[in-house]
Amino acid sequence: MTGGLTYRDSGVDLDAARETKARLAALVSGTRTDAVSSDFGSFGGRFRATAGRELVASADGVGTKLKVAFLADRHDTVGADLVNHCVNDILVEGATPLIFMDYVACGTLDPDTVIEVVGGLSEACKSNGCALLGGETAEMPDFYAPGEYDLAGFVVGEVAYPTVGERGFLPGDRLIGLASSGFHTNGYSFLRELFFNRLGLAVTDDFPGLQASVADVLLRPHRAYLPSLASSLEAERIQGLAHITGGGIPGNLDRVLSPTVDAVVRVDAWELPTEFSVVARESAADPAELFQTFNMGVGMIAIVRPDEAQTVIDEVVASGCDAFDCGELVVGNGQVRLEGL
Amino acid sequence: MTGGLTYRDSGVDLDAARETKARLAALVSGTRTDAVSSDFGSFGGRFRATAGRELVASADGVGTKLKVAFLADRHDTVGADLVNHCVNDILVEGATPLIFMDYVACGTLDPDTVIEVVGGLSEACKSNGCALLGGETAEMPDFYAPGEYDLAGFVVGEVAYPTVGERGFLPGDRLIGLASSGFHTNGYSFLRELFFNRLGLAVTDDFPGLQASVADVLLRPHRAYLPSLASSLEAERIQGLAHITGGGIPGNLDRVLSPTVDAVVRVDAWELPTEFSVVARESAADPAELFQTFNMGVGMIAIVRPDEAQTVIDEVVASGCDAFDCGELVVGNGQVRLEGL
Repeated sequence: MTGGLTYRDSGVDLDAARETKARLAALVSGTRTDAVSSDFGSFGGRFRATAGRELVASADGVGTKLKVAFLADRHDTVGADLVNHCVNDILVEGATPLIFMDYVACGTLDPDTVIEVVGGLSEACKSNGCALLGGETAEMPDFYAPGEYDLAGFVVGEVAYPTVGERGFLPGDRLIGLASSGFHTNGYSFLRELFFNRLGLAVTDDFPGLQASVADVLLRPHRAYLPSLASSLEAERIQGLAHITGGGIPGNLDRVLSPTVDAVVRVDAWELPTEFSVVARESAADPAELFQTFNMGVGMIAIVRPDEAQTVIDEVVASGCDAFDCGELVVGNGQVRLEGL
Repeated sequence: MTGGLTYRDSGVDLDAARETKARLAALVSGTRTDAVSSDFGSFGGRFRATAGRELVASADGVGTKLKVAFLADRHDTVGADLVNHCVNDILVEGATPLIFMDYVACGTLDPDTVIEVVGGLSEACKSNGCALLGGETAEMPDFYAPGEYDLAGFVVGEVAYPTVGERGFLPGDRLIGLASSGFHTNGYSFLRELFFNRLGLAVTDDFPGLQASVADVLLRPHRAYLPSLASSLEAERIQGLAHITGGGIPGNLDRVLSPTVDAVVRVDAWELPTEFSVVARESAADPAELFQTFNMGVGMIAIVRPDEAQTVIDEVVASGCDAFDCGELVVGNGQVRLEGL
């Protein structure tokens, strides 16, 4: 019927959607685990948990770190950011991941970009031992600028380790900081304002003080802490964990404290990684603001009994992640205090 | 430190985020069920499934129906769209929902809008008997136009009913169509092009042929089919279900057929609701294109044995949802054929 409106006229390309779906099926099936019992393309993804175990779910996005991916036209790293962030969140609850689902939304569907994004997601799922069970790829004309997309995800895991605070926190417990791999996925609106607007750098420029481009440093994926903490968790040496995301150390460590203790964090206990000292110097920001916006080099904090602190540090370091004693719990009322700012 | 960069300078308002979080906590706690075992604000939401039951998860977004919500400045309906869509998807797998998580992303966080959106989500969760376990509210400067946001969600349920195809499909099985409540959440780029661009209507104008505004008709929420199908599912009268979303009847019914049967759908078996006949007339679109884009008045199709068809129709109608016989399965190879186009 000549002249009739078609779906394509309104900006939706079903051929691109079909091509993308076929390529996604291959990526998704590569992440399949024993927990999964459905095939790609069903209305809902089916899976099994260990009978009787409590389940833990978490949702997150990548935030404006995506804007750096757009500028660098590099879409294979943001998937690891999202999966590792979500897996770290449920690890705090003592859970290991079973399945992950993604939501990718764009204005115009570019199959290659979506495949690059989901390729990164599926590799990160494999590294964390969880299945990419399904997801949604949405083409939404007029919502996103050309070449841009949003990316969110959702993890479900099951409790595998004794969890936060179950055995109680005690004054004298040590705080063990686990090194971050950089900015992870927080503070990117601040970073973009600083590096691209105020300093006028391009993603291909050298990052000040480092032998790497701005893109390389800003896109370094969020570290996954499950591999580094599995031994210590298995041995029940961890009393509690805090994942240091938006809000920094003060805005996350307070989420797990019991109301009878304060956490005293000595911020001079570790050397500020170069990328954070560059941000501090170039932004001239109040150090308290920086510690509430960025992880400042510490992506996870473990609370451990004093006589197990060194063993936990040794186990984390053996996994290839730096770790250090960065403070302690004292009698208090659930506050976090930074000392040495 | 005067002149230092702050997080607020880069477009992120932590006060608005804190205010929103406090109001969200009240909404979320109102949806709590016995399955939930964590409090608002934890890193991951904890819940329990019935031991031994298979789990089913699904992710979805609202798509460009959101643009209509923006135009009408009405944000309390899109939550029901999202929750009901996700719950319908896992119902096809025989699952009832346990928990839901949302992802709301915006350029500038307006607490009132977010609360209106999440208020709609939480009401829909309560109606479906599932808990709003958590979610992510992301403020992403430069991603979304002022006043706009994206909304996605994830559901996890457990298998409660015998599921699709388990007892096999047989030639002669009847197709029972369940009435949709309108356009649900598919085809909105087409609808926006037609009503706002080609016909030049505003959201406050009367919808052609109906005693309701364009906004009222286009924002009518996606129907939830769990309440209408629970009795028939419980009595094991349903052999299979197809949720009619993007791709219409041909693009969804084929997802559940076994390779030994075809589905013959008689499209003259039900009266096209006015809103769909208006779209057909005003767009002059190819009927086949319309049936691949819209649900055309049928939001869910149940496959049932012939001797149980009338009972299922009666049970669905008793719940307040219209239902009708709209075709049958014949010997074939997994194809869907529309007759009477």
